[in-house]
Amino acid sequence: MVKIAVDMMGSDSGPETLVNSIKHYLKDYDDVSFLLFGDEKVLSELTKDCPDKDRIEIHNTTSIIPMEIKPLEFLRAKSSSMYQAISAVKEGLADGVLTAGSTGGFVTGATILLRTVEGVLRAGLCSPFPTRKASHPAVILDIGANNYDTEEEVYQFGIMGRLYYQHVLENQNPSVYILTNGAEEGKGTDEVVGAYRLMRERNLPGFKGNVEAREALDGSHDVIVTPGYPGNIFLKACEGVAKMMNDLIKESFKMNLLTKIGYLFSSKGFKRMRKTLDYRQYGGAILLGINGVCVKAHGNSNEYAFYHAIGVCKKMIDVKIVDKIKEEFHDSVNNND
Amino acid sequence: MVKIAVDMMGSDSGPETLVNSIKHYLKDYDDVSFLLFGDEKVLSELTKDCPDKDRIEIHNTTSIIPMEIKPLEFLRAKSSSMYQAISAVKEGLADGVLTAGSTGGFVTGATILLRTVEGVLRAGLCSPFPTRKASHPAVILDIGANNYDTEEEVYQFGIMGRLYYQHVLENQNPSVYILTNGAEEGKGTDEVVGAYRLMRERNLPGFKGNVEAREALDGSHDVIVTPGYPGNIFLKACEGVAKMMNDLIKESFKMNLLTKIGYLFSSKGFKRMRKTLDYRQYGGAILLGINGVCVKAHGNSNEYAFYHAIGVCKKMIDVKIVDKIKEEFHDSVNNND
Repeated sequence: MVKIAVDMMGSDSGPETLVNSIKHYLKDYDDVSFLLFGDEKVLSELTKDCPDKDRIEIHNTTSIIPMEIKPLEFLRAKSSSMYQAISAVKEGLADGVLTAGSTGGFVTGATILLRTVEGVLRAGLCSPFPTRKASHPAVILDIGANNYDTEEEVYQFGIMGRLYYQHVLENQNPSVYILTNGAEEGKGTDEVVGAYRLMRERNLPGFKGNVEAREALDGSHDVIVTPGYPGNIFLKACEGVAKMMNDLIKESFKMNLLTKIGYLFSSKGFKRMRKTLDYRQYGGAILLGINGVCVKAHGNSNEYAFYHAIGVCKKMIDVKIVDKIKEEFHDSVNNND
Repeated sequence: MVKIAVDMMGSDSGPETLVNSIKHYLKDYDDVSFLLFGDEKVLSELTKDCPDKDRIEIHNTTSIIPMEIKPLEFLRAKSSSMYQAISAVKEGLADGVLTAGSTGGFVTGATILLRTVEGVLRAGLCSPFPTRKASHPAVILDIGANNYDTEEEVYQFGIMGRLYYQHVLENQNPSVYILTNGAEEGKGTDEVVGAYRLMRERNLPGFKGNVEAREALDGSHDVIVTPGYPGNIFLKACEGVAKMMNDLIKESFKMNLLTKIGYLFSSKGFKRMRKTLDYRQYGGAILLGINGVCVKAHGNSNEYAFYHAIGVCKKMIDVKIVDKIKEEFHDSVNNND
């Protein structure tokens, strides 16, 4: 039985949405149970009609981690749902932790309480992105756990992203690229130029070179690494343009009676497009390099998105992704000695 | 009579496209003339039927600046069309220079040959972006002239971007934002946090704070400044997602007979959308902070796009944007003394 600790209080959509996803997941899978951290009263009420109550354990917490939090503040927020959910993994009560709360708080909390895997310099926040090819995501990290990353850290993101792609997305030979401002070797800031050199020198399997942001999501780039700051700009630029264009598509169809009729005829095509681009199918971001499975669902996750975030968490536990990372870094630490 | 020096040889689409745009422009405006730099034979042939030949001057050049070039190599490429076109501004033969060739070469060449305005630390490559609001571009800089920019440089981009928006886009009170990974003060790398502080301390008119990449193109952010590396990632991420979604829209309509019929009904709406998002209407990028009007058209400019790039160049000359920047920095240099 896989045990997942869930921070029930951090999401924008409220605990009810998360409870609904969990109920749905319990119905679909019988090898998983949940530790729910949050307001006991609220959670008891929301789960009272749950037929699989024996696989739910409610842990009362009395505060919520705010969107912006400093490391010291996190340490003082012991009574919060996020702190307690992460601690459950530390104490061996749960196999993984899932939150839709503050990203900064989660990165801080997971790093402080669970620590990075031996040999891993920094955890990287990793997200599958929809690409031009349906059901063929690109996995990009770091998308914003850190403002600065050294060349060695960016190199390590390549190792971890590759393991994720192999084991969680089940593609044994993913290609690995560095996101930068030109396809040629030598383009970019010192960290990415250095990471390129390290990947070549150490023969990272699957490493193919640089990719520009323009081509990153064309479906032929599997794992893409970047320092966190430009990674975060990339993520949000993609989200912004996708949202703008979706809005404009809706407006185009709503322009007049004729265009509305046009939608009736072409809706099937656009449903397929929406499915291709639906980032919610990938469930959210993953914090890689931590001693524990850590999944960060979108803050505004709906039932469908949070359901998939649970699935990602479960899959990471099932394939023992943390052990794979530990083994890889154990070997590399030993090889470097 | 405004004189524009044009590098005819650098574009992907070849000199014929550029000549067509120039012919078209000559027909529409009688207060402009062109100095064309490139292969004399080719250009004479292409312009032989031009009715406004007296406003064209062909200057023979014998080489082309490659896409990637180092500063020393540029200095040795005196025979190239780009070198000569930039030199024409330096020598006072032309009021501005326009190229669709190598961005790196142009930034290097303009900086070396024309130099930055006194007080300007670095030129910034600036581009108008289409936004959610039709005909309301966001002007973003630096989008990749530099890999690194200091806080002072990012601050200066705010001054220059604002002047551009005021005089070229004719909006007297543009809002100014810093692109970063969070809307709150203090988010981002040291340079952007520092630039924020400088903008507040020195009361840059219109400065409103940070903007995340997700909201940057919603039409309510006029001037957006960023160091060049994340700026370049932002630009190309936007281009990549826009292209991906355009491809998917086409595919959606082409899926089957019904969706094709749907297109016939809704095409008017989508034409409006295409117009809103058409970056070619803005003509390309501008190098701000140089002693001379420098416009970089897209490498793959078609006739329409290059025509608009000429228009941008002409407008910058007409409103004396370089003088405006000189005055602003002259004042600020004196105030700082």
